[in-house]
Amino acid sequence: MNIDMIEAAAARLKGHARRTPLLSSPFLDEIAGRRVLVKPECLQHTGSFKFRGAWSAISALSPAEREAGVIAFSSGNHAQGVAHAATLHGIPSVIIMPSDAPALKLANTRALGAEVIPYDRATEDRDAIGARLAAERGLTLIKPFDEPQVIAGQGTVGLEIAEDALALGITEAEVLVCCGGGGLTSGVALALAAKAPGFLTRPVEPEGFDDVARSLAAGEIRRNPALSGNICDAIITPQPGDITFPLMKAHCGPGLAVSETEALQAMAQAFLRLKIVAEPGGAVSLAAALWRAEQIRSDTVIAVVSGGNVDPAMFRRALDTL
Amino acid sequence: MNIDMIEAAAARLKGHARRTPLLSSPFLDEIAGRRVLVKPECLQHTGSFKFRGAWSAISALSPAEREAGVIAFSSGNHAQGVAHAATLHGIPSVIIMPSDAPALKLANTRALGAEVIPYDRATEDRDAIGARLAAERGLTLIKPFDEPQVIAGQGTVGLEIAEDALALGITEAEVLVCCGGGGLTSGVALALAAKAPGFLTRPVEPEGFDDVARSLAAGEIRRNPALSGNICDAIITPQPGDITFPLMKAHCGPGLAVSETEALQAMAQAFLRLKIVAEPGGAVSLAAALWRAEQIRSDTVIAVVSGGNVDPAMFRRALDTL
Repeated sequence: MNIDMIEAAAARLKGHARRTPLLSSPFLDEIAGRRVLVKPECLQHTGSFKFRGAWSAISALSPAEREAGVIAFSSGNHAQGVAHAATLHGIPSVIIMPSDAPALKLANTRALGAEVIPYDRATEDRDAIGARLAAERGLTLIKPFDEPQVIAGQGTVGLEIAEDALALGITEAEVLVCCGGGGLTSGVALALAAKAPGFLTRPVEPEGFDDVARSLAAGEIRRNPALSGNICDAIITPQPGDITFPLMKAHCGPGLAVSETEALQAMAQAFLRLKIVAEPGGAVSLAAALWRAEQIRSDTVIAVVSGGNVDPAMFRRALDTL
Repeated sequence: MNIDMIEAAAARLKGHARRTPLLSSPFLDEIAGRRVLVKPECLQHTGSFKFRGAWSAISALSPAEREAGVIAFSSGNHAQGVAHAATLHGIPSVIIMPSDAPALKLANTRALGAEVIPYDRATEDRDAIGARLAAERGLTLIKPFDEPQVIAGQGTVGLEIAEDALALGITEAEVLVCCGGGGLTSGVALALAAKAPGFLTRPVEPEGFDDVARSLAAGEIRRNPALSGNICDAIITPQPGDITFPLMKAHCGPGLAVSETEALQAMAQAFLRLKIVAEPGGAVSLAAALWRAEQIRSDTVIAVVSGGNVDPAMFRRALDTL
């Protein structure tokens, strides 16, 4: 993994991924006690940054591989990103999803052009189903984060931050990134290390699911004790990836963690002050920017709001915090 | 008024107003039966396009006029746009607001740096208070729409649409604009007539408050029978302006009108598919794009979502339509 791969991904994404702006509000600056900029990847195609990695990986395949199609395991943002990117490439995609996933998620992924294969979590082996389908049809597996071309695609978020922030005259900033397996965080960190060396990338996680923060502190991979039971479901993963962790260790500052209530409050501030829709796992970065001021040193903090795929009931809970 | 004024405004706004992207979703295309692009001016500073006109007008003043400060009558988006643009210019602003305006609006406008002067609608004469203050302090009145430099600022929305849509290869489109007094609509129409002659600008209003549509049909100014009683409060005005109407008559296609329920449903679609927060008056354009398909002819429709300053209670009403 190096910056050249991210720049190559940016060239492949140009005209296909949306270039998201940097947003701000004097009201957020006041809460944080410093300048706050927000990179709203909720505005990306399919409502999260995942489209970038999916496009990057699919566009990096050989023509023959690409034509055969792709496969992914996901019930969330990665599924939608892969489905949409595959459809725009004119190739088939297969998404393996638990049959008890919300009906709306299955329907949305199908509507984006994927063949959705539901499996029974209790009785069926997801990996076996995927391996059989991949072999039969020659499909390429698009992993959600621990895959160089996926990381390169997510890293284009960092290139855009560097370019837009430097144009604003900002040469030092802490960049807070919502962190699950670390694909987005490691890509952004690598991009910023090369393009904006005064910027420090820092992962943000939910309290109790801060495997990346603990892994960075320990210098080696640590697991989460639990894998469910938090509203920030989009960024709950067992542990950092074998490829993403060394990148984060080399380029990231210490991790931060916020509560579920703070994630909901950050969603409410994003609604009120930025007019964007964030999902809980996509808002933890903004929550840390606003309410972990004492753990941040730079005059400017940049929060990547990584996704906005939230159902109305959860959004109402966020509005209830106002 | 001519295109040169809009281009001059764009030069003054560069680096100050936010350049909003064009958003899209295959789900919206499917509802509309054609390609739908959305220009989210809710993401503009202060949550609406009004910041552009305010910045344009203030930046066009002579240094002496500007230094003395500006004054505006508004309890809504224009107030916030003027207050923020004035503060960023480092000059004083006075906003005359009814004393019974929502406390949050008064507080927000103050927080943006304005001196808010409340007046009693029952017993005091707003214009007299404004005229006295303006004379005493040498303040310049920034009108909400019927003012050439304000129209020029709003017209920069049209320049951006032309540039971004042409870059996508789109040469014909109907551009739907939420329309109150016509500042945004006339500015966009003038810009598109000059820069994208295959594009047709069309005003969209709430049913029962379609003074602009009726004025365009009649060829002369018509008034609304009522001035309140609709959730799209940001775009309820008595009649089109003396400057904006001839521009709209020269450059706009027929007006469209949508119901309050459709405005709320469009807010819900904007939440679900675009991850943006629209206010009722800012969503009527999207509502027409989605549910007035039979009145639209072009393969592509571009909806300007003009603002997102909506309180949580009204947003919940929109979510209830899902």
